[in-house]
Amino acid sequence: MTPTQPHIASSPNGRQLPGHRVMLGRERPLRLDCGVELADFPVAYQTYGRLNAERSNAILVCHALTGDQFVAEPHPVTGGPGWWDLMVGPGKPLDTDRFFVLCANILGGCMGTAGPREDDPATGRPWGLHFPVITIADMVRAQAMLLDHLGIEQVFMVIGGSMGGMQVLDLAATYPHRVFAAVPIAAAAHHSAQNIAFHEVGRQAIMADPDWCGGDYLSEGRHPHRGLAVARMAAHITYLSEGALHRKFGRRLQDRDVVTFGFDADFQVESYLRHQGHAFVQRFDANSYLYITRAMDYFDMAAAYGGVLADAFRDTPVRFCVISFTSDWLYPTAESRQIVHALNAVAANVSFAEIVSDSGHDAFLLDEPEFHRVLRGFINGAAEHRGLPRAAS
Amino acid sequence: MTPTQPHIASSPNGRQLPGHRVMLGRERPLRLDCGVELADFPVAYQTYGRLNAERSNAILVCHALTGDQFVAEPHPVTGGPGWWDLMVGPGKPLDTDRFFVLCANILGGCMGTAGPREDDPATGRPWGLHFPVITIADMVRAQAMLLDHLGIEQVFMVIGGSMGGMQVLDLAATYPHRVFAAVPIAAAAHHSAQNIAFHEVGRQAIMADPDWCGGDYLSEGRHPHRGLAVARMAAHITYLSEGALHRKFGRRLQDRDVVTFGFDADFQVESYLRHQGHAFVQRFDANSYLYITRAMDYFDMAAAYGGVLADAFRDTPVRFCVISFTSDWLYPTAESRQIVHALNAVAANVSFAEIVSDSGHDAFLLDEPEFHRVLRGFINGAAEHRGLPRAAS
Repeated sequence: MTPTQPHIASSPNGRQLPGHRVMLGRERPLRLDCGVELADFPVAYQTYGRLNAERSNAILVCHALTGDQFVAEPHPVTGGPGWWDLMVGPGKPLDTDRFFVLCANILGGCMGTAGPREDDPATGRPWGLHFPVITIADMVRAQAMLLDHLGIEQVFMVIGGSMGGMQVLDLAATYPHRVFAAVPIAAAAHHSAQNIAFHEVGRQAIMADPDWCGGDYLSEGRHPHRGLAVARMAAHITYLSEGALHRKFGRRLQDRDVVTFGFDADFQVESYLRHQGHAFVQRFDANSYLYITRAMDYFDMAAAYGGVLADAFRDTPVRFCVISFTSDWLYPTAESRQIVHALNAVAANVSFAEIVSDSGHDAFLLDEPEFHRVLRGFINGAAEHRGLPRAAS
Repeated sequence: MTPTQPHIASSPNGRQLPGHRVMLGRERPLRLDCGVELADFPVAYQTYGRLNAERSNAILVCHALTGDQFVAEPHPVTGGPGWWDLMVGPGKPLDTDRFFVLCANILGGCMGTAGPREDDPATGRPWGLHFPVITIADMVRAQAMLLDHLGIEQVFMVIGGSMGGMQVLDLAATYPHRVFAAVPIAAAAHHSAQNIAFHEVGRQAIMADPDWCGGDYLSEGRHPHRGLAVARMAAHITYLSEGALHRKFGRRLQDRDVVTFGFDADFQVESYLRHQGHAFVQRFDANSYLYITRAMDYFDMAAAYGGVLADAFRDTPVRFCVISFTSDWLYPTAESRQIVHALNAVAANVSFAEIVSDSGHDAFLLDEPEFHRVLRGFINGAAEHRGLPRAAS
């Protein structure tokens, strides 16, 4: 298997992207939930570790809203560490000495996979709002096509946090025999009214920016950076707990002893948020943000199964480990419990851990020893059942 | 006492405003925390009920961030009911058959009181960002000047929710002998990092709008309506609990049976938020929003008293009734408890009620029978101690 690189992918700030990129759907197009068919579309992905001869040691990592395929290597745009560098690598919970870790930029993304930033083959110009609106299930169909391409019949594990966890649930439900174990983290089986509301604010901020140009900014050579930064700032607050914000920033002032009686960033938390906004727009595409948030809003697994979530998992052979964090108010534990209850209702093999953490939703990205310990335990148990070699001791 | 109307006030959408308006600070200017002095500045206010001969039955209502003086009458811009119509009127908890209810548009506001929308007397043009940055304490100083003007030495009660509650606390601390009873509702003695963060997002949304024109939009004949609408939408989510959003909207679709695979308001909650944004910009000024959110961010009563909140209330003769709501995550009960603990530490006369409600922060504006019952009880008790006549039975 030699991954093809049909043409060079670029990041939202125009930088050439390293890594793998394949064209999928040439023979059998991807039929999207909206009815449109995507043929011959790119998927960019990265791998860490080696696929064993039996092709049985693959771990598919599904990334979240603003993540990408650069899981465990310096990010090609920011230069910062990969978003799950703490989790993926030799001797880490997703141990690349044992497992073949794979992560693809999601459908609708902006780091090389088909999305509104890429060119529409029909016109040779960026898709923009002509890109079809996608769903989590569509993202998962593209993931399955990538597994086909790589010759992986069944992954040992699919794992992801937040929107990544939604993909984990959908993949396990739609392709139960292609998944040995599934780990949805800080996720939910549907998007709540509050989740939709926060996303709608972000979308409105982007669409209110005159540089959005009705979605056609790439053709116009403009960038709705101000709107996208505001969207990111609003979202970022929801990723942190009140306790984490208090601990990190409290009411401390930024490089000053007294307030300025003005609208500069007097408080550290303001300065931090502004930095988050400015950094984000360098590496993300505004239309991608619209499409991906929309896909999350549309996510409602029970609705797809006649209103009964348990029916999504009836007779599932998959081993589940559901993980939530105590201070996550965006995807609170109660929503993970709903998943666990559904799995229990069909007597699925499921373990559940609520991790005590004050870091909020973002805890799944952070150094949370108890979280990592739970995950190592689950992975080792599942690997044994799958007949994979033990970790080196 | 005949309130003067030096010139006609207008609303942000240019409509002439009814009601009272006085010029204050002509003889003794208002010295602001930032060091600037305001002389000869307008304050617009409304009254309901009659001041008794002893001038002892006044209730000062302090409004919240986006409130105004039109407490219990049709709003002159929207035509909707006054924001506390449920609370203020004959036979209602703030019974206008017994009490003289008074509410002034706050300093920095946009409904007739001095703020960035009003003309700077020095230039004859709108203040814009040349208006001095104000604090909650400055707002309260202006309230006290209005009481002076009206010849009211001591109010029977000062009451307000959210930012209104901050003013209640500051007024009781700064002018303890001018207040018989004080009712801070859904408030806090300081603004948390999360509160500041949400406000900063709103400010950035406004300032990102090119129609904001660096704050000079009024002189340019433009209006940053898109940015202000986004700010309002983000804030509005924080006023509701997740439960209230779920109960009101859930994942129900707006006037359609299936999703549209597009970026229209598919969900009721999206449609509702967009409506909130659009309606708000008709009645509010973007620069006012900047100034008032800033005043709230700066609010930290303990800091003003050497870090010890209790010192703000040492030897206070004021009777307090502190009220919070179980589902208010913006100003959670824990923050009201801090106020109660500080009052207890100085042996103040304080009662505390946490009202069970799933309506979130906005509960103080809604028909919450238990809240109204608690308030009636406190008012009747305090009125008896003050020697005011009982309610008609």
